[in-house]
Amino acid sequence: MPSVIALDAMGSDKAPKPEIEGALQAARHHGARVLLVGPEAQLKAELSRYPGARRLEIDIVHASEVITMDDKVEAIRAKRDSSIRIGLRLVREGRADGFVTAGNTGAAMATARMVLGSLPSVDRPALAAAFPTVLNTAAILVDVGANVDCEPHNLEQFAVMGDIYCRAIFGVKRPRVGLLSIGEEESKGNELTRKAFKLLKHLPLNFVGNVEGRDLYLGQVDVIVADGFVGNVALKSSEGVARLVRAVLKETLKSTITRQVGALLSRNAFSDFKKRLDHTEYGGAPLLGVKGVCFITHGSSNTNAIKNAIRVAAEFAEGHVNETIARELAGLHAKTPVPTH
Amino acid sequence: MPSVIALDAMGSDKAPKPEIEGALQAARHHGARVLLVGPEAQLKAELSRYPGARRLEIDIVHASEVITMDDKVEAIRAKRDSSIRIGLRLVREGRADGFVTAGNTGAAMATARMVLGSLPSVDRPALAAAFPTVLNTAAILVDVGANVDCEPHNLEQFAVMGDIYCRAIFGVKRPRVGLLSIGEEESKGNELTRKAFKLLKHLPLNFVGNVEGRDLYLGQVDVIVADGFVGNVALKSSEGVARLVRAVLKETLKSTITRQVGALLSRNAFSDFKKRLDHTEYGGAPLLGVKGVCFITHGSSNTNAIKNAIRVAAEFAEGHVNETIARELAGLHAKTPVPTH
Repeated sequence: MPSVIALDAMGSDKAPKPEIEGALQAARHHGARVLLVGPEAQLKAELSRYPGARRLEIDIVHASEVITMDDKVEAIRAKRDSSIRIGLRLVREGRADGFVTAGNTGAAMATARMVLGSLPSVDRPALAAAFPTVLNTAAILVDVGANVDCEPHNLEQFAVMGDIYCRAIFGVKRPRVGLLSIGEEESKGNELTRKAFKLLKHLPLNFVGNVEGRDLYLGQVDVIVADGFVGNVALKSSEGVARLVRAVLKETLKSTITRQVGALLSRNAFSDFKKRLDHTEYGGAPLLGVKGVCFITHGSSNTNAIKNAIRVAAEFAEGHVNETIARELAGLHAKTPVPTH
Repeated sequence: MPSVIALDAMGSDKAPKPEIEGALQAARHHGARVLLVGPEAQLKAELSRYPGARRLEIDIVHASEVITMDDKVEAIRAKRDSSIRIGLRLVREGRADGFVTAGNTGAAMATARMVLGSLPSVDRPALAAAFPTVLNTAAILVDVGANVDCEPHNLEQFAVMGDIYCRAIFGVKRPRVGLLSIGEEESKGNELTRKAFKLLKHLPLNFVGNVEGRDLYLGQVDVIVADGFVGNVALKSSEGVARLVRAVLKETLKSTITRQVGALLSRNAFSDFKKRLDHTEYGGAPLLGVKGVCFITHGSSNTNAIKNAIRVAAEFAEGHVNETIARELAGLHAKTPVPTH
């Protein structure tokens, strides 16, 4: 029996089109069963335009409200019938095996923590993002924004959860786990990372020590642990550079006729290039440590990104990642004599 | 009378060649007077290969030791006759108006703080890096690694110093100053940034509020304030992405004949592109807040980077940036009723 994934139909910038088409593709190519969560009448009308939709396992669950990217905390709390909240309730009630949204990240994280709660032994759920490396592998950065002002033991748990996620979804047997800092030696970093280093080196993981910002993309480490503030800055700075590079390349390539011809000829290369740097292949970021499966993808997600997020959410559920997290974290504190500070 | 700049002749990865050639170019094109600091015999021999050198204002100051990139704190302290220490002493003694090194950043910062000391009213000197934006302007990030575990008032001082540096060296009349955080509203961020926000908004600066990692490259803000740990992660992550992009582009462009032709035709565009993203144009990072002028450039600095660092260090000295910092910071605490926490 394939997993049932609840999909926030109203999350992305161009919702519900990428969501509906992504759901159709996931159902068609991966045999996924999808619950589209959003305004029923609108979704029914949109879905009816796709002739093949009827034969696929796609149903609609009504949600009357939509959380926007600009909604503040109060607005998010007040919208008790939002597609995010209804979708997460489906997971809590066991009607869905996982939830996917391209909507407001802050709202999705807060609502998931509230509706699903945390797994036993998890103090703070963390958002894990995957990105490409020069070796054409993926690296996972955790946390990228769920927690600011972390304690060392939070980072310890992020390491364990990131390791499990990497093994289960990316198939890395013994992930190399690094701590994001500003210098390789144990003594380098800030107070938080220096304390966290002492905890991480006692974990039954392949801990490779401190790594620096530039190591994120070198492919020498599979899981990188950071507090949510620092992880978010690293991720967003990277997006900024990627945008800068695109803008500058576009401009310089357009500026003469010869170059235009050159650009035309190398067009396919750029499309390959774009694909290799494309985050949408990875299926979004799971909120690790909540009691349920919750994936958050970029607001600019297209059909492909949504399709992949549904696929990966199903793999996450079927791979029993949460059960492994609960078991390994519980075993960790039972067995290992971990120095606290 | 042009400024005298002491240059660590042994700092860069390929020292002393880029240093000697950079010094020659700075002397030739900008009328700079340079003191090359390093092993006298070696530098004399190298310099004698350049026929025009004699007519330029370049002198050698002997330093028998060299700090390597791998030297630990103890080694750095022990090398009392290192080119970094001798160069900074020339500044302290008034024999040079500024110091430039492409060597070990940590060693340069620590030695500068020790040899030069801090300006009055400056609690912690901070390293300021400039980088390119999509609008072809420069943005300054301060601090990029001199201080981890900052207090809110440190960030306040970084803002004031960054603002002055931006006005003096980049000619921006009223720089837009932002605080690096993970969300735009005042309430977003970690404990440090939330407290720093309250201080920054009372400063007599053009404070534009919180900015995110991706805003570093958008050109909508001129000075971005962060604690040294976060700033360093942002900078290094950006370098990592840039390297990833180069690697992927190179690989994809090489993979077919058509693409090779295309790449050949668009070659000039790439060289423009490289130049626009080239940090070496900015002349390195000043350690703001020390009693003297100290610029640190990348270990991979080439002749052009060294030349520009010498030029900018001279501008920094001639622009009386330090006097302005001391005056404005003193005035700030005398006049403005700043809420402490």
